[in-house]
Amino acid sequence: MLLLLGAGVVANAVLAKTKGNAGGFLMINFGWGLAVFAGVTVSYASGAHLNPAVTIGLVTNGATEFGQGVPVNLLSILGYMGAQLVGAFIGAVLAFLAYKQHFDEEPDAGTKLAVFSTGPGIRGYGWNVVTEVLGTFVLVFVVIGFGRAEPGAGLAALGALPVALLVVGIGASLGGPTGYAINPARDLGPRLAHAILPIKGKGSSDWGYSWVPVVGPLIGGALAGLAATALLPIL
Amino acid sequence: MLLLLGAGVVANAVLAKTKGNAGGFLMINFGWGLAVFAGVTVSYASGAHLNPAVTIGLVTNGATEFGQGVPVNLLSILGYMGAQLVGAFIGAVLAFLAYKQHFDEEPDAGTKLAVFSTGPGIRGYGWNVVTEVLGTFVLVFVVIGFGRAEPGAGLAALGALPVALLVVGIGASLGGPTGYAINPARDLGPRLAHAILPIKGKGSSDWGYSWVPVVGPLIGGALAGLAATALLPIL
Amino acid sequence: MLLLLGAGVVANAVLAKTKGNAGGFLMINFGWGLAVFAGVTVSYASGAHLNPAVTIGLVTNGATEFGQGVPVNLLSILGYMGAQLVGAFIGAVLAFLAYKQHFDEEPDAGTKLAVFSTGPGIRGYGWNVVTEVLGTFVLVFVVIGFGRAEPGAGLAALGALPVALLVVGIGASLGGPTGYAINPARDLGPRLAHAILPIKGKGSSDWGYSWVPVVGPLIGGALAGLAATALLPIL
Amino acid sequence: MLLLLGAGVVANAVLAKTKGNAGGFLMINFGWGLAVFAGVTVSYASGAHLNPAVTIGLVTNGATEFGQGVPVNLLSILGYMGAQLVGAFIGAVLAFLAYKQHFDEEPDAGTKLAVFSTGPGIRGYGWNVVTEVLGTFVLVFVVIGFGRAEPGAGLAALGALPVALLVVGIGASLGGPTGYAINPARDLGPRLAHAILPIKGKGSSDWGYSWVPVVGPLIGGALAGLAATALLPIL
Repeated sequence: MLLLLGAGVVANAVLAKTKGNAGGFLMINFGWGLAVFAGVTVSYASGAHLNPAVTIGLVTNGATEFGQGVPVNLLSILGYMGAQLVGAFIGAVLAFLAYKQHFDEEPDAGTKLAVFSTGPGIRGYGWNVVTEVLGTFVLVFVVIGFGRAEPGAGLAALGALPVALLVVGIGASLGGPTGYAINPARDLGPRLAHAILPIKGKGSSDWGYSWVPVVGPLIGGALAGLAATALLPIL
Repeated sequence: MLLLLGAGVVANAVLAKTKGNAGGFLMINFGWGLAVFAGVTVSYASGAHLNPAVTIGLVTNGATEFGQGVPVNLLSILGYMGAQLVGAFIGAVLAFLAYKQHFDEEPDAGTKLAVFSTGPGIRGYGWNVVTEVLGTFVLVFVVIGFGRAEPGAGLAALGALPVALLVVGIGASLGGPTGYAINPARDLGPRLAHAILPIKGKGSSDWGYSWVPVVGPLIGGALAGLAATALLPIL
Repeated sequence: MLLLLGAGVVANAVLAKTKGNAGGFLMINFGWGLAVFAGVTVSYASGAHLNPAVTIGLVTNGATEFGQGVPVNLLSILGYMGAQLVGAFIGAVLAFLAYKQHFDEEPDAGTKLAVFSTGPGIRGYGWNVVTEVLGTFVLVFVVIGFGRAEPGAGLAALGALPVALLVVGIGASLGGPTGYAINPARDLGPRLAHAILPIKGKGSSDWGYSWVPVVGPLIGGALAGLAATALLPIL
Repeated sequence: MLLLLGAGVVANAVLAKTKGNAGGFLMINFGWGLAVFAGVTVSYASGAHLNPAVTIGLVTNGATEFGQGVPVNLLSILGYMGAQLVGAFIGAVLAFLAYKQHFDEEPDAGTKLAVFSTGPGIRGYGWNVVTEVLGTFVLVFVVIGFGRAEPGAGLAALGALPVALLVVGIGASLGGPTGYAINPARDLGPRLAHAILPIKGKGSSDWGYSWVPVVGPLIGGALAGLAATALLPIL
C-alpha cells in the first residue's frame, strides 16, 4: 500500500503525459504522507510496522513486543524487515502496472528510476547519509513522542493521521537533498523491482547509491530510539 | 454534493477566466477529497453510500445491511446504485450552472468534457482498466480498514475526514493515468449530463471510453471486499 | 479574525513584493479555510456566528436560540449581523495595516480592491448570484449536517476543523467564478473599509457588484436551512 | 525540532539543486506548520513552550505555572526563553548540516541567510513591526482560545494539530511582508547560527533588522494575553 501510493505519486509528478505532471513537490509530500496514512491503517494487525528504521528504533527504545503479542527477538526483527521489503517490492510492481503506458512513453531513464528509488540532488555519500540520518531521526523520535505526549486519549484517537502529517512535514523540510527515503525497505524493495521488471528503456538501478538510503535510516532510527529514552519521559 | 464540488474543482482549474485557472493537480486532489468529505457528511442517513464500487465492495466483504437497517439484497443494491447515479447527474448539472458563463467562454470542447467525466492521459483500454481497478481497490480496501483498525474509539471520531484524506491521496498517487474515476456513478452520471445539457460548443461525450470507469471500479471494489476478508482480520 | 487572515492571504498572493506572491489559488483556499478555523475557535462565546448567511440558515432551519442562550428574534438576528459586519470591517483594516507598504507599492487598483472584496471572473449578475447561492447552500447545508451526522461523539470533537476544511473545499470547487464571498459580511464590511481607508492609488469600490455577494449568500443560506429540515433527518 | 524542520523547508524551497526547489509558499507554510506539530509533540514535558512570545502571552494572560508544575516567575521565564533560543540555534545548525552541499552550491548570500532568519519584503521597520505584532497576536490569542473553546473534550483530543494548522494559516495570510517570525527565538537563534557557522560564501547576518522579529512578537504576544483575558471568557 505504501509503495503503490508512494511510487505512484512520483510517477504522476514526473512521467510523461500524466494528469499530475509537474504537480509540484508539495503534491509529492502529500502523496507520500497519505500513502503512510493508508499503509498504517491497513497494517494494524502487525502493529503497523512498515519501516525497518522504525522497527529498529522501537527496539533500541526498549520495546519488548511488536503489535499483537509478537515478542521482540532477532527472528521477529528479521521477519518484520523481510516482510517490509517484500511489501515494498510488490507495491512498486503495482505502481509500475498502474503507470505502465506512461513508463513506455517517458524518454528519460533517470526519471523512470526516480519513481522507484531515491537519489541525491548532489551526490556526496557522506552528506547524503547525514541527511537520511536526520530525516529518519525526526520520524522515529516524533513517532515515539506521539505515544507519550498524550496518554489515554489524545493523538491515539487520530489513528494514522499524525504519522501521515509528520511524513508530509519531513518530506517538505528534509526531502530536498536526497528525496527522503527515511525507510530502507521503501528504497531497496523498489530498486530490486526496477532491476527485475522489464521496463522499456530503463537505465541503471544506481546500486552505487543504494546503501545510503539503507544505512542512513537504520542509523537514524536506532539513534532516535536511544535518544527518546533519555529525552521523552513517560509522565 | 460530491459532483457539485468535484466537477466544480475541475471546472475551476481548467475553464477559461476562472479564479483558480491552472491551480494545479493538488488543488484538484483536495477539491475531490473535500467533495467526498461534504458528501459523506450529509449522506449519513443512508450509510454514506456515494459510490457503487464501495457498495459492491461491502457486499463482497459480507455486509448484511447498509446504513439504517436497509438489508443487502439485489433490490437494495440496484436501488442504491441508481440513486448514486441520479445524484451524480444532478450534481454535475449544478456544477454546470455554477460555471455557466465559463463554459460559454471556454473554446475547447475536450476541456468542457473533462469537467464532467474522466478520460485517459494515454488511451489504452486494458491498461486504463488496470489503473482504475488498482485505484478503486485501494479506496475500498482502506475504507474497510478504517472500520477495523480502531474499534470503539479512534478513526470513527474523525467522521468523514479519513476517507476524504484517502481520496486526496489516491488522486495524487493513482490519478495520473486516467483522472481517477474510482466510482462508476461519478463518471457515468456526469457523462449523461454532458450528453443532455445544452452546453455551448460541446463535443463528443466519448462514449467509447465510458465503460472503463464503470467496469474498472466495480472490479476493483469487488476484489477489495474479498481481499479484506482475508487480509484485514477483525481483532 | 476571519478577515484579518482572509484578506491577508489574498494580499499575500496578489500584492507586489510579498513573500507569497503568485502563491496559487490553493494557498488562498487554505488561507480562508484556516481563517475560518481561527475565527470559529475564538468566537465560541457567541455560538461561533461569523456569517449572516449561516445565521439566517439556522433560523430557517428552525433554531430557537443562538449560542449561550441568546434567543432567536428579529433583534438578535440584526444584532448578530451587525456585529459580523463590524468585525469584518475591523479585520479588513488590520489586514490593510499588515500589508500597508505592499499596498503602497502595488500599482494596480483592481488588485487592491481584490484584497478587500470579491469580484466576478465574468460579470453577469444573474449567473454570479447563482454561483453564490450554490456555494453558500453547500456551506450552510453541510454545517447543519456536521451537527446531525454524528450525535454525541464524532465531528464535534474536531472543533472548528470540519468547517475549516469545508471552506477550503468550497473555495477550490465553487470559488472559480466569483471568488466565493459565501458570506455577506465578509464582502460588504471590507468593501466599506476599502471605500473609507486612505489607500494610495485606490480605484472604485465597485458598488455596482456589491449586492451580489450579499443577496446570493442570504438566499443560499436560507434555502439550505429549509432543505436541511427536509433532507437531513435527526436520527 | 522546530528549526530543523522549519529552516529545512526554506532550504528545500530556495537553495540550489534541491528536490523541492521553487516548491512554492504553500509548501513553506505547511513545512513550518508541521515543524510546529513535531516540536509541540516532543516538548510535552515542558508544557510545549517553543516560543518566547507564547510564553510571555500566557504570563500576561495570568498563568501561574507552566507545564509540569513549573511556577511562573522571572527565573523560570528567563530560563524558558534561554532554552528556546538554544534549541532554535541547535535546530538551525542541524538544518545546515542536512543541506550542507546545497549551501556550498548556492551562489546567492541573501538566499543563504533566508534559510536561517526572516527578512522584510519591503524594509520599513515600523510597518515590519506592525506585521509581526499582528501575526503573533493571532497566534497567541487563538492558542489561548483553543484551550477555552472546548473544555473537557474537543480540540484537546487533536494534540498539536490545531496549533500546527493555525501556523499554516498565519504563514499563508500574514507571512507576506516579513516572512512571519512570530517567534523571537525562531529568528534570533538561527541568526546567531548564521553568524557563527562556517558557511561558504555567506554574507551579512543583517543585524540591523534583527530586533524587529524579537520586539514585534513579544509585543504581539503580550497584547494577546491581555486581550484574551477580556475577550475570551471561561465558560
